This record gives sequence, C-alpha cells and structure tokens, in this order.
Amino acid sequence: MKSHTKYLTFNVPARMDFVHITRQVQEEVSASGIKEGLCLVNAMHITASVFINDNESGLHDDYKSWLEELAPHEPISRYRHNRTGEDNGDAHHKRQIMGREVVIAITNGVLDLGPWEAIFYGEFDGRRSKRVLVKIIGE
Amino acid sequence: MKSHTKYLTFNVPARMDFVHITRQVQEEVSASGIKEGLCLVNAMHITASVFINDNESGLHDDYKSWLEELAPHEPISRYRHNRTGEDNGDAHHKRQIMGREVVIAITNGVLDLGPWEAIFYGEFDGRRSKRVLVKIIGE
Amino acid sequence: MKSHTKYLTFNVPARMDFVHITRQVQEEVSASGIKEGLCLVNAMHITASVFINDNESGLHDDYKSWLEELAPHEPISRYRHNRTGEDNGDAHHKRQIMGREVVIAITNGVLDLGPWEAIFYGEFDGRRSKRVLVKIIGE
Repeated sequence: MKSHTKYLTFNVPARMDFVHITRQVQEEVSASGIKEGLCLVNAMHITASVFINDNESGLHDDYKSWLEELAPHEPISRYRHNRTGEDNGDAHHKRQIMGREVVIAITNGVLDLGPWEAIFYGEFDGRRSKRVLVKIIGE
Repeated sequence: MKSHTKYLTFNVPARMDFVHITRQVQEEVSASGIKEGLCLVNAMHITASVFINDNESGLHDDYKSWLEELAPHEPISRYRHNRTGEDNGDAHHKRQIMGREVVIAITNGVLDLGPWEAIFYGEFDGRRSKRVLVKIIGE
Repeated sequence: MKSHTKYLTFNVPARMDFVHITRQVQEEVSASGIKEGLCLVNAMHITASVFINDNESGLHDDYKSWLEELAPHEPISRYRHNRTGEDNGDAHHKRQIMGREVVIAITNGVLDLGPWEAIFYGEFDGRRSKRVLVKIIGE
C-alpha cells in the first residue's frame, strides 16, 4: 500500500466564496503514482468545507443566498458562540450543511468523477489562510 | 491491497425518490473477495445522493416534504442556476442536505452496518439514467 | 495493509447532546499501529451522528437551537414516521444535517486534524446505548 499527503493553502478575499480545486487534487493523485485507491480531501478548519457539485456561477450564488437564509451572519448576537469574541458563528453552521470532506475513488490513476462533478473549497469565514488536506492511499 | 470498482445505474421514474441499494452494495463486497477494508458508495451526478438511514416509507415521505420546504422546486425562477435553461436548481440544494457519499467499513467480508442502517440512492432530478460508483479497497 | 476495528458505546442521558470523542479515536489509531492510512468513524444508529467541529459549549447550544428550528421534535404528529409508534422522526432529520460519519487521515501515526478540529458523537434520540464504529486501514 502506498500513501501520499499534501496540504493545500487558500486565502479567500471574501467572507464566503467557493474555489474550484479539481485540478490541484488530480495533480496530487498523479504525483502519488497510485492507480487504484481512495482520495480524501477535507477542510482542516471548522468554518470551511470541501464539497462536490457543479462548476456554475449561478448555482454558487444560489448556495450563498440559501446558506445565508439557513444560518445568517447577522445579527452577530444570534449565536452564543460569538460571545467568545468571534463573529463567525454562522460559518460553523454553513459548513455543516455543505460538509467537511469528500472521499473520491481513484481508478486507473485518475479521480473517478462523474461528468459534472467538480471539487470545491468552500470558505465561510475568509480573509485568512486556511489549509485543505489531500490524503491518498492505494496501490 | 485489493480493489474493486462497480458502476450501478438507476433510472428513477419520479423527480424525487429513494431506492434501497444495500443488497446491491453487499453483492459487490462479496464479489471483491475483500474481508477487511472500506467501501465508498457515491452518486456520480450532482443532483443525486447516496445516504444511510431507515428503510421506512413514512420517514421517506417526511424527507421529501422537508427537503421541499428547505429547497422548493418552484418557482423555477427562484434559482439563478435555472437561468441556464435548467429547472433543477432545487435538486443541487437537496443533494447537499442529504450528502453525496457514504463510506462503510467492511469487517469479515460484509458491510459493517448497524441493525437499522440501510443504504439509499437519493434522486432529486430523475427520469433519466444516472450512475452510482461503488469502490472497495482492502484485503 | 493492516486494519483495526473498534465499537465504542455511548449512553447519553439527554435526548440531544454532543460527546467529545477525539481522545478515544486517537487511542484506537495508536492501538492499530498504523502510521499512514484512513480512519472512518461512523454512528451505527440512524438517529445519531459523528461530526467534526469546535469544542465550544456556546456553539453546541447554537447547534441544538438551530437543529430544533430546522427539524422540531414537536408536535410529534409532524412526522409520518412517528405513526409507527416512534417519537424520533426529528432525530432522523437532525442526523442528516450533521452527517453520519467522518473520514480522517492518519499521518505519522496520529489523526491528521487541524488545530481546532475535534470529533463529536452527536446524539438526537438518547437515553439508550448506541454504538460508534471506528475502522482504520493503512500501513
């Protein structure tokens, strides 16, 4: 069994935004030399997500509006978490809707994705550096 | 390390419905000959889910009503995504609630599921063929 | 390839609560002797979750209020599932928001978690014993 570990860093200039990372993840699969296996991609921060969906800007705008409805940023006082001096209580909720991680099959040395599947880093409390972990195991 | 890859195809006649697939996934585990490992089951389409919950029709009706409240199909104009000519903006949202994938342990050659755990394909924009990937690694 | 399997049991005295289990999961990683691999941690019951977020009590209170808004326990008659004699229809919904499982990388023999990542067992229908599965594969 082989394994490969990579930490990607993102510094998103907005509070909330999505970054398309499929190419970067595939580069790690190629670098690993693994032909058959599993690839875990997860946010290492608890106000961010990694998820798979469509690379379509209208949908991304829809997600932002919807997440803001489900877990509004304001009023800051809405969240007991923010009594700690934070203002990111909403981000911890948005991340639960969108998820922490994806696990993707590797077949014949490539990410075994459906035709419209694209991997995104989801940021809900940006304007600072955060890491994403890519861990690949297989043979 | 061994691996096994299978693509299942589903064509659900309704826009939204759930298909019980535990038996089909266990058949792939058996076919793989793997005794100890991990089994990834994921939708390869971004308007569908694979999830684990109860095989109880009342609960499935509850999920449908609840998902329709959280991300209504209509009005179609609610979603910027639908300006591309699609009418499935809601399906991309419902799938985020229910999730893309499950990872299941394999112990002694069988899916290591709790007594009430059942695996479902969740369709949110049906009436066409879609694929589910089963990837198993282990020994 | 090596593997390690452990069933943890929790009996949470409240209907809904969260239990910090990072230490217990790390103990299983250490017991496995696996240095590089993947660790699956999942609820074996369908009214419970395993999730990763902040170990902060204000946030946990926020989650409880938010989940109660998204899927209220009462009225019991709100859920068709409860016509089976159950009163836990809400718990099956809350668990979908929070997720069934997490998959965590193992690097150099430890859980490769970000600085604020903590693993929780999420109970939504407590006051009885339930199991969590820890499955580790790697080398």
